[in-house]
Amino acid sequence: MSPTTTSGIDEKLLAVLRRLLGPAPIALVLGDARNLPETSEPIIATLRIPERSTLLSMALDPEVGFGDAYSTGRVEVDGDLVRTLESAYQSSGTRPWLWRMRSKWLTWSQANTRSGSARNIHHHYDLSNDFYRLWLDERMLYTCAYFPTPEASLEAAQEAKLEMVCRKLRLQPGETVVEVGCGWGALAIYMAQHYGVGVKAYNISHEQITYAREWARREGVSNQVEFIEDDYRTVKEKFDVFCSVGMLEHVGPDHYRELGQVIHRAIGDTGRGFLHYIGRNRPAPLSVWIRKHIFPGGYPPTIRESMEVLEPQSFSVLDIENLRMHYAKTLEHWLARFDAAFENVVRERGVEFARMWRLYLAGSVAAFRSGRLQLFQVLFAGKDSRFMPWTREDLYTPFDQEISDQAWTRATY
Amino acid sequence: MSPTTTSGIDEKLLAVLRRLLGPAPIALVLGDARNLPETSEPIIATLRIPERSTLLSMALDPEVGFGDAYSTGRVEVDGDLVRTLESAYQSSGTRPWLWRMRSKWLTWSQANTRSGSARNIHHHYDLSNDFYRLWLDERMLYTCAYFPTPEASLEAAQEAKLEMVCRKLRLQPGETVVEVGCGWGALAIYMAQHYGVGVKAYNISHEQITYAREWARREGVSNQVEFIEDDYRTVKEKFDVFCSVGMLEHVGPDHYRELGQVIHRAIGDTGRGFLHYIGRNRPAPLSVWIRKHIFPGGYPPTIRESMEVLEPQSFSVLDIENLRMHYAKTLEHWLARFDAAFENVVRERGVEFARMWRLYLAGSVAAFRSGRLQLFQVLFAGKDSRFMPWTREDLYTPFDQEISDQAWTRATY
Repeated sequence: MSPTTTSGIDEKLLAVLRRLLGPAPIALVLGDARNLPETSEPIIATLRIPERSTLLSMALDPEVGFGDAYSTGRVEVDGDLVRTLESAYQSSGTRPWLWRMRSKWLTWSQANTRSGSARNIHHHYDLSNDFYRLWLDERMLYTCAYFPTPEASLEAAQEAKLEMVCRKLRLQPGETVVEVGCGWGALAIYMAQHYGVGVKAYNISHEQITYAREWARREGVSNQVEFIEDDYRTVKEKFDVFCSVGMLEHVGPDHYRELGQVIHRAIGDTGRGFLHYIGRNRPAPLSVWIRKHIFPGGYPPTIRESMEVLEPQSFSVLDIENLRMHYAKTLEHWLARFDAAFENVVRERGVEFARMWRLYLAGSVAAFRSGRLQLFQVLFAGKDSRFMPWTREDLYTPFDQEISDQAWTRATY
Repeated sequence: MSPTTTSGIDEKLLAVLRRLLGPAPIALVLGDARNLPETSEPIIATLRIPERSTLLSMALDPEVGFGDAYSTGRVEVDGDLVRTLESAYQSSGTRPWLWRMRSKWLTWSQANTRSGSARNIHHHYDLSNDFYRLWLDERMLYTCAYFPTPEASLEAAQEAKLEMVCRKLRLQPGETVVEVGCGWGALAIYMAQHYGVGVKAYNISHEQITYAREWARREGVSNQVEFIEDDYRTVKEKFDVFCSVGMLEHVGPDHYRELGQVIHRAIGDTGRGFLHYIGRNRPAPLSVWIRKHIFPGGYPPTIRESMEVLEPQSFSVLDIENLRMHYAKTLEHWLARFDAAFENVVRERGVEFARMWRLYLAGSVAAFRSGRLQLFQVLFAGKDSRFMPWTREDLYTPFDQEISDQAWTRATY
């Protein structure tokens, strides 16, 4: 074949990739072949693809093709990675057939049955505490923070998040709380220390629960906080309050009704609860690349879908807040810290792992910024509960002040 | 028949009614026949039913049977009416077959097509402005108020509601707003006067729109506010903001997608919107008696059901607040004013109408108190909108202070 023909194939493949990518102001380059978007916007990045096989895999499935090529260094991004991904997210439309087939396969093979969940959670959360310590805050909080102002530090914002969760629930001394999916234990310990409640906290990540137990011991709250290494489906006792921060994404829509039954068993018709989860504006499966490499079994529901947890039990929704820009900000902090520790990660886990995780964090910033993902906090109560905060004004008492007693009184009628 | 046999029939009918009513602490009496609940709670009320035919209709369908008997004075309630209804709502369970048949018939015969909506809305909102003036606040607001504290006056609470809606939408001078279902025009006029926006407000109630136009003229804002006597489905122009307070209950689930399309046509993917509506914890038709006499075609959706308006258009939900106790409080004020004007209503419209409306208002207080009904306010934005208030703290600036510019700046990113 003459060089002209070869370059002709590349141009055709670039054109296919362009169709899937849409008009994002990103130039696509393989050797002499170039593809520029039909847009008047200035080009913000150039993707340099050294090999045709890489281009082919990207043209068949841009998401997985690009993700794998980025991890293995077979594609170069000249330009800001986050901005490039944000622009690609906003521009791209339909999914190719290969993506849809892969997506279906993953939905089936990574189903969140008890054994499936154990496998899925182990894959991500048992990587190693030392690895997460490189880029999370000092409390090891791995969920969306709450930034009272965009300029707040990550540490301050994570503490504000813990405080805000307790405030939304209007916790009272002596109450009992069940937390499912408790991570490294920060929220359970904060609730015990600052609100005087008793907490039973569930998690199936062995690494995390071991860490949490040791931490509770060090803080001297082991009598108030019990960490249980088990699936949320095993919760059987009665509590005043149910709480889950960042677990619903791992439950899967097939198990929402079951989760609702577990919550109802725990708090009945008179308790109250809180769900914090990554969601969507309209239903769509999670990125195939993310499910393949980062979060097996993950699914971010829409509000409509998540109501499948609450409505069959007649739970009453009191308050929903969307904090997606706070998650974008949280992830910016994580990405900056990850980048600062990059060489360290490469040394410990190899360059492919490091690049894969960098792409996951950068892609997540872009997903929350562009609105591809949302972050919902839902406060609810049992149908016969008398918990109904009169207004939400008490939530906005400055964080260095205690909430007035009057406000607490007004949380029930 | 001997008197014993007669009383035996009554006792059996009372027992049937009791089964449908459940263990509510309410005594049922017809002549010598009595039925007391199996409960240790003290009896809060006695229903005295003078005639067997009335008892029969109540035993076949307690809701419609009681409602009609109360309106026509064929049943007496010894005890507080609101408390009695609240207790009955909390206690009663399954619906008898007659209720279900009547419910299906109404759902069909009162469907909210364009002509059906015109009929349904005319039935309620065109009764007469003078009648509503007897018991609404001075602004003629006929939707849930916002009580900064439970002690606020109805006038103050209705003004606070108007202000809160504008704050949630973070209106900016010069923006354009479309309001559908604008009642007597108070919100549209408030927005124009206090936030400097231009409003087109739709309503199919002739009485209301005539009143609203005249009011806008008196206030000198006719150049900013246009009142249009037409169906929401006819909205065709583009606006920055969509707003609807108390209309979704009249739209009907069959038309939610269509409403979503109308909203999307109006604000596209970059505008923002607000829905305020009576809702439910779990799906159920509205009271048959209420649909028969008060709100033909009414249906209060769950959050899940109402998402059928927003999700197909990829609208992003930013904030949902449940204000049901504020509606209970609003209705308490209306009921007290209605009771004060009772003789007046009897003179103008007859005693049956007056008792029917008294029961509707008392039943509504009970429904919101008991959690049978909810009140949701939903703030949302188009998928590509950059409207995303950083926090909700600015909503809680005292009502006599202006919101700081900084807070406004933080409403977009």
